[in-house]
Amino acid sequence: MSNLTVELNYFLYPSSIAVISDSPTPGGTGCKFVGNLIRADFRGKLYAVNPNLKEIMGMKAYNSIMDIPQGVDLVILAVQSSSFPEIIQECGSKGVKAAIISSGFSGVSDDGKKLEHKVLEVARRHGIRIIGPNTQGIINATNNLMAFTDPDTLPKLTQGKGISYICQTIYFFEDWVFRNQGRGLTKAVNLGVMCDLTNTELLEYFGDDPETRVIVLQIDQIRDGREFIKVARQVTQKKPVIAIKAGRTQVGVRAVVSHTGSLAGSGKVYDAVFRQVGIIRARDTDELIDLTKTFAYLSPMPTGNRVAIISLSGAASSLAADACVEYGLSLAELSKTTIQKIGQVIPSWTSIGNPIDLLQSPEVDRRVAHSTVLEALFTDPNVDAIMIIQCMAGTFLEQFNIFNILKECIREGPKKPIVMSGLMDDEGLKQSSRLDLAGIITFSSIRRSIKALAAAYSRYRYLNQ
Amino acid sequence: MSNLTVELNYFLYPSSIAVISDSPTPGGTGCKFVGNLIRADFRGKLYAVNPNLKEIMGMKAYNSIMDIPQGVDLVILAVQSSSFPEIIQECGSKGVKAAIISSGFSGVSDDGKKLEHKVLEVARRHGIRIIGPNTQGIINATNNLMAFTDPDTLPKLTQGKGISYICQTIYFFEDWVFRNQGRGLTKAVNLGVMCDLTNTELLEYFGDDPETRVIVLQIDQIRDGREFIKVARQVTQKKPVIAIKAGRTQVGVRAVVSHTGSLAGSGKVYDAVFRQVGIIRARDTDELIDLTKTFAYLSPMPTGNRVAIISLSGAASSLAADACVEYGLSLAELSKTTIQKIGQVIPSWTSIGNPIDLLQSPEVDRRVAHSTVLEALFTDPNVDAIMIIQCMAGTFLEQFNIFNILKECIREGPKKPIVMSGLMDDEGLKQSSRLDLAGIITFSSIRRSIKALAAAYSRYRYLNQ
Repeated sequence: MSNLTVELNYFLYPSSIAVISDSPTPGGTGCKFVGNLIRADFRGKLYAVNPNLKEIMGMKAYNSIMDIPQGVDLVILAVQSSSFPEIIQECGSKGVKAAIISSGFSGVSDDGKKLEHKVLEVARRHGIRIIGPNTQGIINATNNLMAFTDPDTLPKLTQGKGISYICQTIYFFEDWVFRNQGRGLTKAVNLGVMCDLTNTELLEYFGDDPETRVIVLQIDQIRDGREFIKVARQVTQKKPVIAIKAGRTQVGVRAVVSHTGSLAGSGKVYDAVFRQVGIIRARDTDELIDLTKTFAYLSPMPTGNRVAIISLSGAASSLAADACVEYGLSLAELSKTTIQKIGQVIPSWTSIGNPIDLLQSPEVDRRVAHSTVLEALFTDPNVDAIMIIQCMAGTFLEQFNIFNILKECIREGPKKPIVMSGLMDDEGLKQSSRLDLAGIITFSSIRRSIKALAAAYSRYRYLNQ
Repeated sequence: MSNLTVELNYFLYPSSIAVISDSPTPGGTGCKFVGNLIRADFRGKLYAVNPNLKEIMGMKAYNSIMDIPQGVDLVILAVQSSSFPEIIQECGSKGVKAAIISSGFSGVSDDGKKLEHKVLEVARRHGIRIIGPNTQGIINATNNLMAFTDPDTLPKLTQGKGISYICQTIYFFEDWVFRNQGRGLTKAVNLGVMCDLTNTELLEYFGDDPETRVIVLQIDQIRDGREFIKVARQVTQKKPVIAIKAGRTQVGVRAVVSHTGSLAGSGKVYDAVFRQVGIIRARDTDELIDLTKTFAYLSPMPTGNRVAIISLSGAASSLAADACVEYGLSLAELSKTTIQKIGQVIPSWTSIGNPIDLLQSPEVDRRVAHSTVLEALFTDPNVDAIMIIQCMAGTFLEQFNIFNILKECIREGPKKPIVMSGLMDDEGLKQSSRLDLAGIITFSSIRRSIKALAAAYSRYRYLNQ
């Protein structure tokens, strides 16, 4: 196990946590952290420290961390910034290995800089790593570590798909986790201003984490460009890394500079670096959600760019063909065997080709047609991926249940990558969540489906270049 | 009233409809049409004709249209295609003015072409206009005319915003109406293969229709290019026209050609024509929904491209700034008065500029801050439009209810165009629907919000070039 893994495990797998606060009134930030950890049912020991309170959320509040009889791995600080150095000093004596500093070093003044240096100096002397300042903390769904986020407000996390999320700005994480309904998230770290632990280190850590399959990276700045490039190159060989980085234009860069107080780097530089090291870039929060869904759930992944389109409308499949061209995919030329098989389930007067239109005629049994076509495409050597254009609304389910047909066809797992468009209402969404879990990814629109497929293929090309 | 308006009013405002079917078994297509019209509570007279049935859905079934004692404006045909000429002939004698032909002229065979010519010849002789073949019909929310769509499966239509939708491929309409939750739709016409009435004629009709404020156009083909350009130029001067046309690439064009059997025209030609005549083009079904929402609800519309961004995160506003650059908008330079006003509600150490970050510090009262900033931006002559970046989830409402603040600020209607991003869950969606109705449009992502604002501004530029 690398040193970095050991150090970061104290944050993500602490055997004990102490929440240190100094507010004399109950109900402050420290109380919230303790309450969140209790409600989340954190699987480890939990202590509260507050010299001004006797009890926090029903737990004894120690006067100082030194009074805790057992050892402490991780501390969470919710105290006046002026006491940071003294408390970190005490933590060092106690043998603490990791500290999360939630609030800031008092804004952007010179005193803040001095304080930061002092805190870092003490921390380094004692081998304490720091996450923060200005962080909303950490989530680890595997041991119920949720100190900063009220677990009652979070969507239910389903850790099975191993998505780990590294961010500096909490807004992006909140947007992602709510709109993604928490699906697939195993760990999340909000680094805040990164006075010590960097996104490069987290990236390396998640690269080695056996529970992490996909890494999402929201970047404000990268402090160590060369190291980042080295680490990213290694990690992307093992796992897909999806990044969102604002400041693609000069105007965007200026907007972020005024916020963080340090240079964010030009958009074009990041585009070039990401491409070079195999990081998949999302331009928007919608794309970030689509991409994580794709890399976490799509199975198998495409190994070629030839797409077969199964549609219920010529104009709709034309839109899909447009998107294929735009995103560097091509329309598969169906094999003779496939065309023969399709010919058995659609009227003889219909021309058979790709896109495959299964709905032109009332005499087509759509259940038989869809399953026959899918089986044919699964074995067609000219087809790398399948796009299904559908109307996924509750009211359409009775007439024609594409979800049941697909589940039937993929009993042994999909044999080719399948994306599907046409999400319409809550019922469609519910049904499609189940398909996502089975490896078929569903999207609202045709273009988003093809874009996702192209992104998945771009990773194949990167790994096989 | 123009001849065209008179002719098309027989389709959309018929005083009487006869559904003509010939299936000897109850429950066929004809029965469905009658049932739909009954359930929708069509405000006009309704007759059923079927020589093989005595009764349809509890209504007397006439042997022939000639047996109906009163006059008939519109007929809906659900009969064998071979009887089309004879029935249209009878309709002519009866004084019928409009016919909807639901099924096709038997596929793509030569006989189909011959039959089409015959039907058209008879119809023209009697002054009957035809919608179809291969159409799912018409919706008019103002008189409950819903023959083809089961009104129980349709989302509840709210006609108030006057959106009229012209399509050839029903898939696009279904996708739009379900995902748009039926909001704002007043009329919809599915033209199918357009043997007679064309999308150009419908466009002209809706251009003159006082109930139509926004026109959505899904195009497979345009049969009369010159006439279309002439009509579109006139209509876009009066109302926004949003179009989706698949086949933007050669591959996409080929895909649609195989479906309709006729040339769809190259994507680039359409791009150029649309730009020239002021039609706003959607590249995807998501964009189509965003654009109709924007043109139907955003109020007031932008008259300049200088955007002020109110954000809760520097990195998020940087993403918005990126999108502004990409879509031809610029960041507003706030006036001195605005900066002074903002200075009163945020901490002195924070730099004030655009983007305006209102969440950096816990000492900011976000309610006061947001309303003060909005009031300042409303009167700032340097600001043309406002983008608000938010987290719109039910769980955030208790902490900070942006919806209530906005409703308070816009009691007399928004004084500048406002778009907002950050839709997250059902509760957010519910709240945001109310804002949409008040003129503030909400979107899932930052980029989509800015793109919509840019589209709205592009119409201003087109009208004032």
